[in-house]
Amino acid sequence: MYTLKNTTEVASLAKWAQNVKRSQLQEMLFAAAKPGIISFAMGLPDSDLFPVEGLMRASRHVLANDSRALQYGPPFQPLKSQIVELMAKRKVVCREEQIFITTGAQQGMNLLARLLLETGGQVLTERIIYTGFQQVIEPYEPVALSVPTDAETGIDVEAVASLLGRGARPAFVYAISSGHNPLAVSLTEAKRSRLVELARQYRVPIIEDDPYGFLNYGDVILPPLRSFDEQWVFYVGSFSKILMPALRVGWLVVPESLVPKLSVVKEASDIDTNTFTQRLISRFLEQEEINTHLSMLRHEYRARRDVMDQALREHFPPVAKWGSPDHGVFFWVELPRGVDTLALLADALEKERVAFIPGHAFSVDPLHGATNCMRLNFSHSNPNLIREGIARLGKLVRESLNRNVQARDRAD
Amino acid sequence: MYTLKNTTEVASLAKWAQNVKRSQLQEMLFAAAKPGIISFAMGLPDSDLFPVEGLMRASRHVLANDSRALQYGPPFQPLKSQIVELMAKRKVVCREEQIFITTGAQQGMNLLARLLLETGGQVLTERIIYTGFQQVIEPYEPVALSVPTDAETGIDVEAVASLLGRGARPAFVYAISSGHNPLAVSLTEAKRSRLVELARQYRVPIIEDDPYGFLNYGDVILPPLRSFDEQWVFYVGSFSKILMPALRVGWLVVPESLVPKLSVVKEASDIDTNTFTQRLISRFLEQEEINTHLSMLRHEYRARRDVMDQALREHFPPVAKWGSPDHGVFFWVELPRGVDTLALLADALEKERVAFIPGHAFSVDPLHGATNCMRLNFSHSNPNLIREGIARLGKLVRESLNRNVQARDRAD
Repeated sequence: MYTLKNTTEVASLAKWAQNVKRSQLQEMLFAAAKPGIISFAMGLPDSDLFPVEGLMRASRHVLANDSRALQYGPPFQPLKSQIVELMAKRKVVCREEQIFITTGAQQGMNLLARLLLETGGQVLTERIIYTGFQQVIEPYEPVALSVPTDAETGIDVEAVASLLGRGARPAFVYAISSGHNPLAVSLTEAKRSRLVELARQYRVPIIEDDPYGFLNYGDVILPPLRSFDEQWVFYVGSFSKILMPALRVGWLVVPESLVPKLSVVKEASDIDTNTFTQRLISRFLEQEEINTHLSMLRHEYRARRDVMDQALREHFPPVAKWGSPDHGVFFWVELPRGVDTLALLADALEKERVAFIPGHAFSVDPLHGATNCMRLNFSHSNPNLIREGIARLGKLVRESLNRNVQARDRAD
Repeated sequence: MYTLKNTTEVASLAKWAQNVKRSQLQEMLFAAAKPGIISFAMGLPDSDLFPVEGLMRASRHVLANDSRALQYGPPFQPLKSQIVELMAKRKVVCREEQIFITTGAQQGMNLLARLLLETGGQVLTERIIYTGFQQVIEPYEPVALSVPTDAETGIDVEAVASLLGRGARPAFVYAISSGHNPLAVSLTEAKRSRLVELARQYRVPIIEDDPYGFLNYGDVILPPLRSFDEQWVFYVGSFSKILMPALRVGWLVVPESLVPKLSVVKEASDIDTNTFTQRLISRFLEQEEINTHLSMLRHEYRARRDVMDQALREHFPPVAKWGSPDHGVFFWVELPRGVDTLALLADALEKERVAFIPGHAFSVDPLHGATNCMRLNFSHSNPNLIREGIARLGKLVRESLNRNVQARDRAD
């Protein structure tokens, strides 16, 4: 006979999972979802800019004409060929056979890590990276090799060269070439070419995460790493930021030989990518002018970027540092050492009802915690909210700096 | 200086992934997708039975009224409460806090394995299991403990007791209580209760995969394992078979303490479950009569089951064995030893244009390959196609048996 155990007991979890908690990003998502909060936290596109009319037309067409739209099914071939055309706009030459459709970009990264990374294997990233990528690799308990990032030119490629030269053999290098999340920087052309050269030389693939490649605001548009090499760069793309996130469709551009293996890990993950939303996107691209939509997005987001830049100049203290991003949806603001942006966030939410993500969340190197930094999103809020939110946040930042100065004075 | 490597080289993959190939199920999907093939291969619902009108009404309503439907977002709370009501129809008492929404049931199993299974850990399953679950655990290179299944009463629970009693401590037991895929059997009430008792006694959770629980055809409807215990049974549910697969929405019912951890692995997998299709389902459940729809499905699929049963009696040789399933969408047919259903499939596709899945695909125990068995789906094809397809297949089976007899005669 056995005794009933009390219900607070739980099944034993895999070792890595025992300390897993909800991420800071998730906590933010919940906090920022409260009414009345001006949120610069998440990387959300503005739902007022979603092409809802076009989607409704596409939806009517698909439901009326395509009997396979609601069934399980293989990847939708016409969408692959449309993605090839889309990639050509980014100066990437690729073939349908190299396109692998995923449930959003996040799944793309997940599947690649699944195929490439052993438990306890090495990965090479920047010191400050997208939290979602940290979550992708965490279950593998990897040896994390990290390199610095220059605020104006991007990942330190010579540090990459040095690590590889000294014998590091990571499963891959993770990089965002345009509109870094969270660092907002884009790689120079020289660095792009050099990074790919290193990948080839040391036979280490690059996972190129490019959700913001189409959201470019400058005159010079540099092609992604994938345009330099089709064998050693695995490109990750997404419709979430250029159409809408709810479709949950992204894609990979990979060597053709990887596709059958990706199919297996994909099937194990979620059987297939939503056949309905694949067709919605395909029909949308067929019936609407994607260039017109992209131009509108660039125009709107460029204006918001400029509003946030201007508001930061007005309301943040002169010691704060940031660059104006030429791609993407984020500013990265560095405050003087000693300012703790995690503490600042608590105040910001409570007193000023403004949300952002503290730099610490993005750090993979305990020695470089970015605890004095913050990531600010400018795509989600309209210009008035951006002005208002940055003004409120600037007030808190200045108060915090004053407190630090007073504390130092007392200590002197 | 380095030399350009030739382009056939590929990045080095994780060890488990090096031999990964497209699964038999995937090959079948492609083969069966050709026009003119009568397919009993995949577990597809019939798209003619999808509630398309209701979906269109729901789609119009959601797109016109819910501005958050196309944005990233947390799980849709109203859907959780509707799932609680749905579970009550299966005699499962649960709370919204125990519901975790997933991108289909496959993702639910994947996330659970992620949390529970270490690389090289033990899992306990039947010898013949759903291929999709094999794919879920494969990357962990697990120690696979397996037990037989009785064709009429389901998993051999005393074999489970014996393994656990001798010290086996698997991360979980995987079980389908109603309408086994592929074995078509449902567990008796005594076995249900005993299996859960063992899970409690040995503190080993059960992953209960229940895609077919609502597709019941008999008079007696047994509640799922989850109705016996809320702490040691992790229930996996899905809308794919009761509404339509393209929505890619499923759910877990788990102890509340697991939910925050699941959120983390979920976010790493694909950020969130499609906010649009979550709302489509929720609106559908609000506006339509799900009971009426489920009754229609049961009525239709029961009729097809009976047609297939009758056709098998008419066209298959008397040595073939099968049971008539009281749940789900499959028949499992056992032919005499010596018949190789994989070879038979090649013939079936080429000569008779009929598809099925050979038993071997489902076997996790090399000593019990089920090479003389086949899984036949009855939900996807209408009654005329079922009659026609089984007649063609029966012809091949009889020819194959005759050849075997002749070969034995010659050998004598």
